[in-house]
Amino acid sequence: MRTVAEHLEAVLALVEPLPPVGTELEDALGAVLAQDVRADDALPHWDCSAMDGYAVRAGDLLGAGPSSPVRLRVVADLPAGSGAEPVLALGSAARIMTGAPIPAGADAVVPVEQSDGGVEHVVLTQAPALGAHIRRAGEDVRPGDLVLAAGTWLGPAQLAAAASVGAGRLQVHRRPRVAVLSTGAELVPPGRSLTYGQIHDSNSYLLAAAVREAGCDAVRVGAVPDDPAALAEALDAAEQQADLVVTSGGVSMGAYDVVKQLLAGRTGIDFVRVAMQPGKPQGLGRLRSGTPLLALPGNPVSAFVSFHMFVRPALRRLAGHRDAAPAVREALVEDAWRTPESRAQVMPVVLVDTAAGDGALRVRRAVEGGSGSHLVASLARAHGLAVVPAAVQDVRPGDRVEVLITAPELVPSSAGSPR
Amino acid sequence: MRTVAEHLEAVLALVEPLPPVGTELEDALGAVLAQDVRADDALPHWDCSAMDGYAVRAGDLLGAGPSSPVRLRVVADLPAGSGAEPVLALGSAARIMTGAPIPAGADAVVPVEQSDGGVEHVVLTQAPALGAHIRRAGEDVRPGDLVLAAGTWLGPAQLAAAASVGAGRLQVHRRPRVAVLSTGAELVPPGRSLTYGQIHDSNSYLLAAAVREAGCDAVRVGAVPDDPAALAEALDAAEQQADLVVTSGGVSMGAYDVVKQLLAGRTGIDFVRVAMQPGKPQGLGRLRSGTPLLALPGNPVSAFVSFHMFVRPALRRLAGHRDAAPAVREALVEDAWRTPESRAQVMPVVLVDTAAGDGALRVRRAVEGGSGSHLVASLARAHGLAVVPAAVQDVRPGDRVEVLITAPELVPSSAGSPR
Repeated sequence: MRTVAEHLEAVLALVEPLPPVGTELEDALGAVLAQDVRADDALPHWDCSAMDGYAVRAGDLLGAGPSSPVRLRVVADLPAGSGAEPVLALGSAARIMTGAPIPAGADAVVPVEQSDGGVEHVVLTQAPALGAHIRRAGEDVRPGDLVLAAGTWLGPAQLAAAASVGAGRLQVHRRPRVAVLSTGAELVPPGRSLTYGQIHDSNSYLLAAAVREAGCDAVRVGAVPDDPAALAEALDAAEQQADLVVTSGGVSMGAYDVVKQLLAGRTGIDFVRVAMQPGKPQGLGRLRSGTPLLALPGNPVSAFVSFHMFVRPALRRLAGHRDAAPAVREALVEDAWRTPESRAQVMPVVLVDTAAGDGALRVRRAVEGGSGSHLVASLARAHGLAVVPAAVQDVRPGDRVEVLITAPELVPSSAGSPR
Repeated sequence: MRTVAEHLEAVLALVEPLPPVGTELEDALGAVLAQDVRADDALPHWDCSAMDGYAVRAGDLLGAGPSSPVRLRVVADLPAGSGAEPVLALGSAARIMTGAPIPAGADAVVPVEQSDGGVEHVVLTQAPALGAHIRRAGEDVRPGDLVLAAGTWLGPAQLAAAASVGAGRLQVHRRPRVAVLSTGAELVPPGRSLTYGQIHDSNSYLLAAAVREAGCDAVRVGAVPDDPAALAEALDAAEQQADLVVTSGGVSMGAYDVVKQLLAGRTGIDFVRVAMQPGKPQGLGRLRSGTPLLALPGNPVSAFVSFHMFVRPALRRLAGHRDAAPAVREALVEDAWRTPESRAQVMPVVLVDTAAGDGALRVRRAVEGGSGSHLVASLARAHGLAVVPAAVQDVRPGDRVEVLITAPELVPSSAGSPR
């Protein structure tokens, strides 16, 4: 048996970052940057006003106040976007809006609230400090600064940063495309009725959705029967349209384990046992034309666990993330359970609110007393997966465990937070 | 000035959950369920095997072991999906695969590893406990059980749960569609060059991406100049194609604040000041045909903060979430800063790893010494927003703050976690 870490390494050896493609800024959400974004110019581009008000020479307003107002001539009106370049002489002011360039000669801004709002002349009731309400050129970015490094995930704020330095197109790693299929003669698509011995296919929905949630495209092939010829045909088609093929089922010790039947012994494909519960039997390798294959076990919880432990890191590497492993969070255990000897255990957990108020995450098993790999409906309650190392036999209240958050949307707010 | 809570209440009063639509299971990822999903049948549907092996009568194997093997006649071969209904008489066994129904008369399963793998007869070297390796009907779901409640967010595991009980279509709340436009004569789309006084539009990219990241559709109208007629036309078009219109800019004290110029005084539209920094000036109400409008301030950090404090809760309500407020996490502060008097402060922060090993989240300001609302490039470094209540003046190391995680993808793993 190989360890989880050894298997992860073998999985990651099958994939590399997809090539860069040029994309419109707007279409880059969720992608990983393939090239540094640097600033040509400073940001702000020039000293500019932080307020709606009047650009002034501070020296003109020494001693100004509510009881000693000062009147200045307004020599310019500077809305944001104004290309005007007036020069303020002594005794003059420019009406200026937030973001407009500070005119030459001005060295402070008085907010409109400290004025009579005048257009030709203005009465000001504040003596501003030198530089008051002026945003300095380059405060945010200096020319040549690295704004976004290659390898950066592009969320809303990252796209805004790129936009702010004028990048209308970005080089990003192509979005991975993954073909997903489940195997098993017993599988019937949801919506159709069952006869005795049949069950509904849930894995192809589970895995396709997990691929999409990870920001990749999924081609859900659906369920393939336990027939090697049918599977061979499905795999041939799948690998032509995908960067990675993921199957579930048919990798264990059964007499009809079709993935193993078809592929065991093929050069470049291995069926291995990983010291992990659930998810021990795993297949991996390359299909005929070189497309990587990850063959997961078919129990739904095993497939889900295998996705998060192995497929998601592979997707992250394909997508260009520098760190293939998704982030884990440390959490304190609230209940107790035994784990299998010499195998890592991956337990569906919920994050609980104990009102302890110490900022720590706390977890409890999602299903009391059960980690059965067939409990697919119960899995919907889980917020994450606690990963218990192979050396640990007993998990006890207060123990620290690593948690992969799998359903961030379901995680409740921290203890005691006013909403 | 109104409080953040008062403004949020006013914003949420403008929206209600969008009507349910029927959708294919596969297309429901990220939507919110509008109707309970209940199980018609038990899951597992029948007692079934948890292993590949042999279904037996445990009584036949009393005393069996490696040195005292027992030979049974194999009367049936039961792959998963088999509809056969054999009956096991005394002294007989059925070869059975994981997930296949346990035949009548059998009361235990012996794993294939404890056998010679025989097809006509099998030699077994284990005396199984009564019920060994049998999954009981209904262990996961009993008939009539609530599998997913209306209001549930549909992630991969939730779709799998629905699939497992045969739900091929779901009633979900329609996905919100949001029109996003920024205002300002100074704005030029990224990719085009600037003249003096101009800047690149980043807000329309920021807000459209934030809407999409929240699982909604965005129509990015782009930048509209400071011309009331042009804005009126853009808003008329926008409200026809959206459930919500979000603008940025033009809501403050400036002489050219176009959103305010056009809409202030219109029945049903208010411009208010919220006791929050940044993001004080806010507009809200209904456009001509009733579409809700949220008019955010134009500084990029103000727009981002306003999105997370007000727009995202509105999107969550439209999408059907029971709790409009996104989850907040409690975190411990690592640095120190002053906050404005009598206004809540929303500070971009990074989550830091201090190797404290106590499971607590820790935060630090994303930009040392600055919370300037114009620092759009610097905002790309932030992992979240710390929300400091209005009553707090000083934030000190060790203080607890609430954090809205805005870029979960950027949050590093917890301290000391083996990867």
